[in-house]
Amino acid sequence: MASALLLRQQLVASVHNSLRFPASGCRYVSKAAVNSQADYEYDRPLMKTQVPGPRSKELTKQMGQIQNNTAINFFCNYEESRGNFLVDVDGNRMLDVYTQIASIPIGYNHPALLKVVSDPNNASAFVNRPALGILPPESFVDKLTEGLLTVAPKGLNRVQNMACGSCSNENAFKAMFIWYRNKERGTSIPSDADLSSCMINQTPGCPELSILSFSGAFHGRTMGCLATTHSKPIHKLDVPSFDWPIAPFPRLQYPLDEHVRENAQEEARCLEETEDLIVKWRHKGMPVAGVVIEPIQAEGGDNHASAAFFISLRKIASKHGCAFHVDEVQTGGGATGRFWAHEHWGAEDPADIVSFSKKLLTGGFFYRDEMETDKRRGDGRLAIYDTMQYNPHHPISTMVRGPGRPAWQPAAGRGHGRHEALPRPTRRIMVHHPSLNQGEPLGIPVNPWILLPPVSDGTRAFNAPPPLLAGWLSAGLTVLAPPADPAVAPLFSLRARDGEGPLH
Amino acid sequence: MASALLLRQQLVASVHNSLRFPASGCRYVSKAAVNSQADYEYDRPLMKTQVPGPRSKELTKQMGQIQNNTAINFFCNYEESRGNFLVDVDGNRMLDVYTQIASIPIGYNHPALLKVVSDPNNASAFVNRPALGILPPESFVDKLTEGLLTVAPKGLNRVQNMACGSCSNENAFKAMFIWYRNKERGTSIPSDADLSSCMINQTPGCPELSILSFSGAFHGRTMGCLATTHSKPIHKLDVPSFDWPIAPFPRLQYPLDEHVRENAQEEARCLEETEDLIVKWRHKGMPVAGVVIEPIQAEGGDNHASAAFFISLRKIASKHGCAFHVDEVQTGGGATGRFWAHEHWGAEDPADIVSFSKKLLTGGFFYRDEMETDKRRGDGRLAIYDTMQYNPHHPISTMVRGPGRPAWQPAAGRGHGRHEALPRPTRRIMVHHPSLNQGEPLGIPVNPWILLPPVSDGTRAFNAPPPLLAGWLSAGLTVLAPPADPAVAPLFSLRARDGEGPLH
Repeated sequence: MASALLLRQQLVASVHNSLRFPASGCRYVSKAAVNSQADYEYDRPLMKTQVPGPRSKELTKQMGQIQNNTAINFFCNYEESRGNFLVDVDGNRMLDVYTQIASIPIGYNHPALLKVVSDPNNASAFVNRPALGILPPESFVDKLTEGLLTVAPKGLNRVQNMACGSCSNENAFKAMFIWYRNKERGTSIPSDADLSSCMINQTPGCPELSILSFSGAFHGRTMGCLATTHSKPIHKLDVPSFDWPIAPFPRLQYPLDEHVRENAQEEARCLEETEDLIVKWRHKGMPVAGVVIEPIQAEGGDNHASAAFFISLRKIASKHGCAFHVDEVQTGGGATGRFWAHEHWGAEDPADIVSFSKKLLTGGFFYRDEMETDKRRGDGRLAIYDTMQYNPHHPISTMVRGPGRPAWQPAAGRGHGRHEALPRPTRRIMVHHPSLNQGEPLGIPVNPWILLPPVSDGTRAFNAPPPLLAGWLSAGLTVLAPPADPAVAPLFSLRARDGEGPLH
Repeated sequence: MASALLLRQQLVASVHNSLRFPASGCRYVSKAAVNSQADYEYDRPLMKTQVPGPRSKELTKQMGQIQNNTAINFFCNYEESRGNFLVDVDGNRMLDVYTQIASIPIGYNHPALLKVVSDPNNASAFVNRPALGILPPESFVDKLTEGLLTVAPKGLNRVQNMACGSCSNENAFKAMFIWYRNKERGTSIPSDADLSSCMINQTPGCPELSILSFSGAFHGRTMGCLATTHSKPIHKLDVPSFDWPIAPFPRLQYPLDEHVRENAQEEARCLEETEDLIVKWRHKGMPVAGVVIEPIQAEGGDNHASAAFFISLRKIASKHGCAFHVDEVQTGGGATGRFWAHEHWGAEDPADIVSFSKKLLTGGFFYRDEMETDKRRGDGRLAIYDTMQYNPHHPISTMVRGPGRPAWQPAAGRGHGRHEALPRPTRRIMVHHPSLNQGEPLGIPVNPWILLPPVSDGTRAFNAPPPLLAGWLSAGLTVLAPPADPAVAPLFSLRARDGEGPLH
């Protein structure tokens, strides 16, 4: 308790300091835009009612007549929301560290994005939805080259755009299955038996292959993804699944420097079990075509592992001929202080496939040349496909290719500079508290609800954030908590000390 | 041949007539907008190069460096495209009866849609992507009520919005599984065994249940959907699947009125086999939770069945306790002359679930009260969920709720009036040729490549369209064919008679 109190006091002090800290230059928009950004952001939260307030309650009730309403936190006024401040329909203005499940990359109503969408030259892009795989617009090659490909993970030269996170992972799985079968066959030309049996869901055309995933993982809610998701029963209950192997994700003890030996043992145990499962499933006749893992488990807790663990895992996958798929749907886009969380591993050859969505505002996956499955196939097209795939003109494409480059690409160096692109309130809180900077090498998250690194007293932020939250609250900040979950809800049951509004 | 020639001559004459036909009033936009629509549409195709032209070939080659490029037809200039005319990057202007795989509801760059997206009040909607299931915007209830729910299929009072067609079907399947298991259990409260086993993909939590689908069906490309898709091997090859039952879809003979007995027998055979499969899979220990079917098979050919067939099928599903899911992703949104293709059945109780996407510009599914699975569950939320779900401010929402109402909702009556909302070239061709109107009760499609009804000489338009295409071509129209497919390509190998450009 003493250390928690101390931390809280430190945090209060540091937040107070940060409020006086002059805004530094902003590298991602023009000088004029910096000014307008300063204008458009709010200084502090402002609570007017309990949350959810009366208007939210009324709308939630109405929604119950139309569709399931049990997951609704409250209704929002997005027009009035700014930066990291979310305004609800009852006029409450909250510091939003949840950011639409980690999907708002640079804050609400960012002037640079508003400028893009209000450009009349972009209007056509919003009303004509090309089927990108067959009839792309002229600018598409440039947009991929000057946009997504500039943030391609090491060694992955190709990118398949998709619509959402689940579709990205589903199609990444399919790419791994096809790659694996081509290897098994020794050719990309399917046999007659392959072609006829696949039409009726039977082997050999629909093979007995598996994807190895990890306990606590979250990879999406469609049926292929669900078979690799193991975070909460509610996602999976009553939905048929595949008998695929599930390896343990390390459960590290904190503070890390006091549990070096235990944690090394724990990671070694998980690696060994992973390798055993790969062998076991091969013997079962359902070989592991790919291993999928999040660099930081978010939905399933806030579970980290060392760079050494991931690098060893990747080697084990390669040793057994399994593709290695890093799911960065939630961690990609700068949330960890580098563009991709896996960059913190410092690996030369981090992955075969890296999937993304959320903060990138479009889904998809990067992949290495050898994973270009369609290239190798006789009747090769449309194996990996979707009608729309994404809107190539989405603002983010323009942001990435625009002068001055990405708002959401952290500067390469370490230190404060790289935080300049964050919405101001986040920056202020995050940068100036030393305990948060201790989280290296994972860096400073844009969306701390998901990705707070271990803090100085050795607790993990997501699983034990009360001191941290208390600090924020003491500084007059109101925190929008993630949706109540049995494992997490108690942590967010604190109330603002100034009594202005509850956490929920 | 004689009848084909006659048909062609009739078509030429009727198209020529239609070109002189004065534009009638347009019910879905204001007078001013009508004028601008008249201004913005092109009169006729204009071919400048072979297709794909040199610029398309160059871009396709570039694209090959980034991702699979084998499915690309050509690159487009969407800014210059209008109504039913698609302009490519080589300046070719083609009559587009393909419309981005049936996904452009009212033509390219429709003035009413452009007006919506260029309204500064809507800008915020494009840059802030709410996680709709938890933090919806204030206007969301109204948008659903005044938008999607105004086109709710009979008996389906609730709507779940989703992002794309595959996600819509995947989540509709999940809803049926959950509904079925709740029935089996007699309660929505899962047992401890359910909760623990589902986390590792095992029964009883992940039950052995199935979805019955039909040969030739296309329901999407994610792994759950793929298990019900049986149109082409390329979609399914090398992807693990579920051992789910696949019933025969009727293969009718044409002209219908000359094959009444044979077709009745064929449909009876398919119904009988469907019922046998439901019983067989129950005995196998993998009961059919739901039956999914398209009202018209499109990707798998152009396969129709009678209203009586669908009504009987729905009764068989109910008799055996299976949910009945009508997949209108490709047929919904007015393509058949009514808003939903299943309306042609005249059924009082057509379905338990109807899924949609494409022409509705957002995905989702309508469902009846009893299918509100989450309502019944102790920890009931987020079983059916996705981070974004859709953009509630998408132009179509505004279109549907705007004064004068839907561009894409055909008028209720029969006859020419209901075609007035179609882009002009389609309207001209379609309305004034009597052979096309014979297709009733399926009505007149917006996207004839997919949904041309049987024509007067008894051939089916999609499977035997040469006379029809020849007629269009004779009238100086250039037709953009669907992607080459072994079963279809030969039908599109005609060349324009005026030699201006090839079909491909």
